[in-house]
Amino acid sequence: MSDIFTHEIRVTWGDCDPAKIAYTARLPWFALDAINAWWEHASGGYSWYHMEVDQNIGTPFVHMSLDFRSPVTPRHRLKCQVWPLKLGDTSIRFKVKASQDDKLCFEGEFVCVFIVADAFKKQTPPPHMQDFIRPYLRDSEGNPL
Amino acid sequence: MSDIFTHEIRVTWGDCDPAKIAYTARLPWFALDAINAWWEHASGGYSWYHMEVDQNIGTPFVHMSLDFRSPVTPRHRLKCQVWPLKLGDTSIRFKVKASQDDKLCFEGEFVCVFIVADAFKKQTPPPHMQDFIRPYLRDSEGNPL
Amino acid sequence: MSDIFTHEIRVTWGDCDPAKIAYTARLPWFALDAINAWWEHASGGYSWYHMEVDQNIGTPFVHMSLDFRSPVTPRHRLKCQVWPLKLGDTSIRFKVKASQDDKLCFEGEFVCVFIVADAFKKQTPPPHMQDFIRPYLRDSEGNPL
Amino acid sequence: MSDIFTHEIRVTWGDCDPAKIAYTARLPWFALDAINAWWEHASGGYSWYHMEVDQNIGTPFVHMSLDFRSPVTPRHRLKCQVWPLKLGDTSIRFKVKASQDDKLCFEGEFVCVFIVADAFKKQTPPPHMQDFIRPYLRDSEGNPL
Repeated sequence: MSDIFTHEIRVTWGDCDPAKIAYTARLPWFALDAINAWWEHASGGYSWYHMEVDQNIGTPFVHMSLDFRSPVTPRHRLKCQVWPLKLGDTSIRFKVKASQDDKLCFEGEFVCVFIVADAFKKQTPPPHMQDFIRPYLRDSEGNPL
Repeated sequence: MSDIFTHEIRVTWGDCDPAKIAYTARLPWFALDAINAWWEHASGGYSWYHMEVDQNIGTPFVHMSLDFRSPVTPRHRLKCQVWPLKLGDTSIRFKVKASQDDKLCFEGEFVCVFIVADAFKKQTPPPHMQDFIRPYLRDSEGNPL
Repeated sequence: MSDIFTHEIRVTWGDCDPAKIAYTARLPWFALDAINAWWEHASGGYSWYHMEVDQNIGTPFVHMSLDFRSPVTPRHRLKCQVWPLKLGDTSIRFKVKASQDDKLCFEGEFVCVFIVADAFKKQTPPPHMQDFIRPYLRDSEGNPL
Repeated sequence: MSDIFTHEIRVTWGDCDPAKIAYTARLPWFALDAINAWWEHASGGYSWYHMEVDQNIGTPFVHMSLDFRSPVTPRHRLKCQVWPLKLGDTSIRFKVKASQDDKLCFEGEFVCVFIVADAFKKQTPPPHMQDFIRPYLRDSEGNPL
């Protein structure tokens, strides 16, 4: 059982819109940054770039759903908790919960499929990936499965 | 009854990732561009910037949900159909369907609330907004209500 | 002698920062969008994506220099004039002048080199490229050479 | 005399274009992130957001010039050294040098003016700002003045 991974984001002036809060379209971007950082962490160094370029494994998104609870600002670092909810035969579902100053800002679920990158064809993730993913699986509340 | 509004996006090199397709985090951004263009069109010139700065009306997002059907590339313009699904007392729900070369690339639903911008407080949209919104309402298939 | 090409950009809420003007880092991005659109226009449809993926020709930037004259806002479309200043053996220098409502907002110069894309190695641009580029050459004031 | 400040950037998949390197328009963005981080560091916590919103001080850019020396990739963190080259009456000039794996990737100079934010009017920076800026001044090679 692994701890929940947290990716920290420095929200800046350039992320904000005239309402003085992070622009909505930046928030899924932050969530994807966090999921990418989770891959790098859980795999021991293999982010999407390495997976695609070095390992010919892609994980394109087929679905995302987000609820925005509270505005994001540059006043605090944004702490994004990421964990996998479900590992299917050829897909993986993630949960992301993003908070600032202990207040939930947004949360979402994201579904990716595993593909052979250069063929853009579904595949079962190789055993070593399944092995490093499983210890991170938790339910949507973050409780161990 | 108004026609379905279509916003055209020029997808470019800089929108694409090493998989040679538009990066996933650009797609909700494109959808928001399309919704903003809908506001400009339906209101006769008032995009989010004008609504916030000139009219003190904000429409922050509280939810988005997207399904990705087919990759987006720079080979064709991206045609984003946008229409409101539901106008509530203090909220509005949009549908966005984005296609290239007559193939559906992604679709999603987006919920915004109406606020007094400088107070960040919910409000009922003023009558003139309700008036220009209603003729655009359609069901999730795009059929008139 | 070809006319000066103008690329129009729809500046939006999401491009603006809390100062209610387009964020500085968006402006070189807009300039690059305009240069990419120039390529598409001058070549008869080949933007950077097509050049790289279909023709194995890359034009990476080695230099850019910009002067910011006046803020960019969503109140007007941004009109970006683009033309080549100089075509060298293995490089090309562009001028971009971006205006809103007939007021100069920023201008800049950009130098790119021609490479064999998959080898990342300098090359002389092929004759057909030289042919479509030359008629667009002008001096930094926009006067025909 | 203060040490040269270094801001570290995690370059990701989403920053890269189909050439598998960070998209050129991301590089001035990274440089601005680094300059913003310098302000936060040198001032003891006041980034552009705080300066504008809490202190009514803006520092808009009037010029930037960049030379791109070597591609940026997600394989290494991008280390951006930032220091002020010159503090004028109403302006400041910065140098940014960005490296990966001890190799220079790009460098640039950036000029900002100090303004009263809500009046968009030039001003001399307040004494406390001059005081925290001066110890960081170095020449373009990074040698103490």
